[in-house]
Amino acid sequence: MNKKHAAIAAIAGIATAVTSLTGSGVKAADMQPNPFLPAVPFTSNMEPVIPHPKQQEEAAAKLNALEKRLGRKPNILIIVVDDMGWGDPGCYGGGNAVGAPTPNMDRLAEQGLRLTSCYSQPMSTPTRASLMTGRLPARTGLIRPIMAGEKLTRNPWSDEQTAAKILGKAGYTTALSGKWHLGEGKGLEPQDNGYDEFYGFLVVTAEYTPPWDVRRYPELVNHPLLRETYLHKGFDNHIIHAKKGGFKEDVKLLDIEGIANCDQDFLKFSEQFIHKQAEKNQPFYLIHATAKVHFDNWPAEGYQGKSPAGTPYKDAVVEVDDIIGKLIKVLEETGQAENTFVFVTSDNGPEESAYYDCGVTPFRGAKGHTWEGGIRIPGIAYWPGMIKGGRDSDGLFDLMDLFNTSLAIGGVSWQKLPKDRYYDGINQTSFLLSDNGESNRQSIFVWNQYDFMALRWREFKSHLKINAVDNMSYSSNGGWQNTLVLDTLYPWTYSLYRDPKERYPGQGGQYEWTIVPMNLEGQRHLLSFKKYPPKKVGLQVP
Amino acid sequence: MNKKHAAIAAIAGIATAVTSLTGSGVKAADMQPNPFLPAVPFTSNMEPVIPHPKQQEEAAAKLNALEKRLGRKPNILIIVVDDMGWGDPGCYGGGNAVGAPTPNMDRLAEQGLRLTSCYSQPMSTPTRASLMTGRLPARTGLIRPIMAGEKLTRNPWSDEQTAAKILGKAGYTTALSGKWHLGEGKGLEPQDNGYDEFYGFLVVTAEYTPPWDVRRYPELVNHPLLRETYLHKGFDNHIIHAKKGGFKEDVKLLDIEGIANCDQDFLKFSEQFIHKQAEKNQPFYLIHATAKVHFDNWPAEGYQGKSPAGTPYKDAVVEVDDIIGKLIKVLEETGQAENTFVFVTSDNGPEESAYYDCGVTPFRGAKGHTWEGGIRIPGIAYWPGMIKGGRDSDGLFDLMDLFNTSLAIGGVSWQKLPKDRYYDGINQTSFLLSDNGESNRQSIFVWNQYDFMALRWREFKSHLKINAVDNMSYSSNGGWQNTLVLDTLYPWTYSLYRDPKERYPGQGGQYEWTIVPMNLEGQRHLLSFKKYPPKKVGLQVP
Repeated sequence: MNKKHAAIAAIAGIATAVTSLTGSGVKAADMQPNPFLPAVPFTSNMEPVIPHPKQQEEAAAKLNALEKRLGRKPNILIIVVDDMGWGDPGCYGGGNAVGAPTPNMDRLAEQGLRLTSCYSQPMSTPTRASLMTGRLPARTGLIRPIMAGEKLTRNPWSDEQTAAKILGKAGYTTALSGKWHLGEGKGLEPQDNGYDEFYGFLVVTAEYTPPWDVRRYPELVNHPLLRETYLHKGFDNHIIHAKKGGFKEDVKLLDIEGIANCDQDFLKFSEQFIHKQAEKNQPFYLIHATAKVHFDNWPAEGYQGKSPAGTPYKDAVVEVDDIIGKLIKVLEETGQAENTFVFVTSDNGPEESAYYDCGVTPFRGAKGHTWEGGIRIPGIAYWPGMIKGGRDSDGLFDLMDLFNTSLAIGGVSWQKLPKDRYYDGINQTSFLLSDNGESNRQSIFVWNQYDFMALRWREFKSHLKINAVDNMSYSSNGGWQNTLVLDTLYPWTYSLYRDPKERYPGQGGQYEWTIVPMNLEGQRHLLSFKKYPPKKVGLQVP
Repeated sequence: MNKKHAAIAAIAGIATAVTSLTGSGVKAADMQPNPFLPAVPFTSNMEPVIPHPKQQEEAAAKLNALEKRLGRKPNILIIVVDDMGWGDPGCYGGGNAVGAPTPNMDRLAEQGLRLTSCYSQPMSTPTRASLMTGRLPARTGLIRPIMAGEKLTRNPWSDEQTAAKILGKAGYTTALSGKWHLGEGKGLEPQDNGYDEFYGFLVVTAEYTPPWDVRRYPELVNHPLLRETYLHKGFDNHIIHAKKGGFKEDVKLLDIEGIANCDQDFLKFSEQFIHKQAEKNQPFYLIHATAKVHFDNWPAEGYQGKSPAGTPYKDAVVEVDDIIGKLIKVLEETGQAENTFVFVTSDNGPEESAYYDCGVTPFRGAKGHTWEGGIRIPGIAYWPGMIKGGRDSDGLFDLMDLFNTSLAIGGVSWQKLPKDRYYDGINQTSFLLSDNGESNRQSIFVWNQYDFMALRWREFKSHLKINAVDNMSYSSNGGWQNTLVLDTLYPWTYSLYRDPKERYPGQGGQYEWTIVPMNLEGQRHLLSFKKYPPKKVGLQVP
């Protein structure tokens, strides 16, 4: 075995060791920087960053000037659309071209920063968990969607902290409006994890409507016993209003009418929240997480047939875009637009198990996959006066970075964070705020549950494992129901500039040269799991 | 056989009858409107249009006001990039995201009208022919690329008229800068077909460089006999400068250095042409057809490594975008920006035989195919003061429409055109110029050589035949080298809103209802070939 093959075997070996979660005699090593690449470690439990001293100064100066003017820290509004594809918004090549215009998102992109290499996890729960904690799903244990009524073997939140919790201690009023999907029951809900107020639901759109949906589930609706069983499945099928400290009530049943209109309810809650905050001298941190455009997309009042395509999914895109426009409008009306950092994104690629009234991605694969189609999502940063308009950047951005970035905007130093865990997120404030800011992130580490699947560095993506659909399936769609995890014989490396659809991993050893720096980068990453092992909370696929 | 199947059989029958070009006893019928659809025939040899009286008035008023101010007709500048994919420009979701920013095209799109359903023919020659004549390739005989030195059995131009020729008679100064690819030899070149001046080449980039390209063609370059043979293949491998009336000279050898820099030469020619025209009181019609981004993409001076991706194709995209910016700049500098209708487009989808340093499309297939990837291309209409900025539209637009639209802008009535032939183009002036203009085109008729392949109506596309690559090919790329034409068992119908990648033709008969209106539309179209039969010029694949 020559050196190169030994190095590859080393990655594969560590990956197997870590991802199988078996014990190992390997001595945990402190992280070493990758000698080929520029990121610099600054502490042992945080992802190294690429130093950009000049843009950091520029961003800090902007934030300081704003704080001086405001007399307090800025607000943070993170809008997470459910299952929206990269190819859905007009500003990413969708919009009218796919039958659902998105003028509000397009305007935010035009007047803000449009990220073209913004990454989520492959699914809802892991993305939301990582966005809130700055940690990879394998570290928090929240590795896949928690299904309605599912009991975990251990509360993953007992030793995790959300940005909301940390910012709350730093003087922020915090709220979550809409979808949580990060656990049900005491200790597991938003109001138990740093959110002052929660107005939303705990699971996922598609799990509420079945007992009423004779169109999709005639076998359930037409058989009283089955229906009864489902209705008593042991999860709360209501919009819940809850507050830190104990207040909690069911507001509205999430039957079909409830689901159809719930995004309008969440909008109303967020609008009122933003109005209330305008009167206070306290900044806010609000996650507005829409129920749409996750299937089932039942039309809200006034939205049926509103899209040129006229289908439920496309009407939902139009509704969600309207909602985004209205949230910005209320910021403007209450004089808070210039005081509020806004980030619009999606929790993963399009859900192709709802094919083919579902979202669009120009990439390979879809939700559930670690091909670009599953994890490369829209990301628009908007902040008038603070983020220069008309920018777009292909700099790497992981939604986890919103944890660190939110804390930095809120003035919480990384030095105050607990040191007993690893943080995968990166403070991207200077990337976003500097007029010509570049990403501070060196690599995207792509995981699917406990598998280290792939690594992106610059425009190159190297797959150690891939997702595939078996070729006897009725459907070749993305989705997790019929998706396999396969080991590659040798890392499959693509240039996402030349081959954005990941169709052909190099030709004639074209990317042979990337093996050395990327191999070391993967090793560096995996070693962090030796010192800070993965967490299990009972979410492994049984 | 029930009625529906009979109707389908009728389409297939007519298609076969027409496309095989055999004689037939069927009596040529005059065209009938499709009773299901709104387009209205206004004369028997022109494609019916959807009436939009209000927007027509608005557009006419704008044109009249401009003419009053100018004292003459407006200029027309059509920029045709070679082989650029829908997914290449930033404003279509490419740009930085695929390693080659396109700030100039993005700005034109932002300040103009971005078309999202703009169609070409599947290849260079047929697209250019149809753009210039307003007629489908099967009618002009220019159905596929003319290869260097190829002799036709008949001069297709002897009974065709370019827009340049017609506009020239109406007082326009006309020129073609760059690629012609519509015939070599007396009677077949631009200066013989209505262009006052031609500065460019006759064939295609990739046919000039082989005798010097030791990297791609070592077997040719290293063997004197082969090389000698190729060099004497009987075609002019120079940039040619020619004028109507007889002047013609070779300007520069198109060896590798010549090809690398020729787009800069064409730019200089066009800049000088535009400057000269500014001093005249005569409008101009200029087609600027770049050599790039067709392979081989050898970098012009100063462009090597200019793109973030750093590859020849991507550097070429950057160069072409710069060229577009400079053409607009010279219009501005000479005070002609507001007097000039500009249209930026590509002649077909990305050339995937150069995979994978080639263009990008988010769609299925590539150049040579009648899947969206081959024929759906960028289309940006820009005209400050005349075309409202910030618009995008999914209205159907065929590049053939530039024929009729150019004539309308130039004040030439359709009634003056010869009546012995069918025109497939549509005057889209009101679509482009009215602030909320809608397309006047009802359908896109998709042909590949003499095969009627598919029909697009609204967001629906119905394939009578498809292109495929045999599954034993080394490559699954697009391209014509390994592409098949296959008959569908039953029309394959896709919604391009729900399924823009044409992955699954309906589910459970989902588009059954489209059969009736689309069937009649296809019949209406094919009947036009009964009265106006296809033309053969020896370009069939032998």
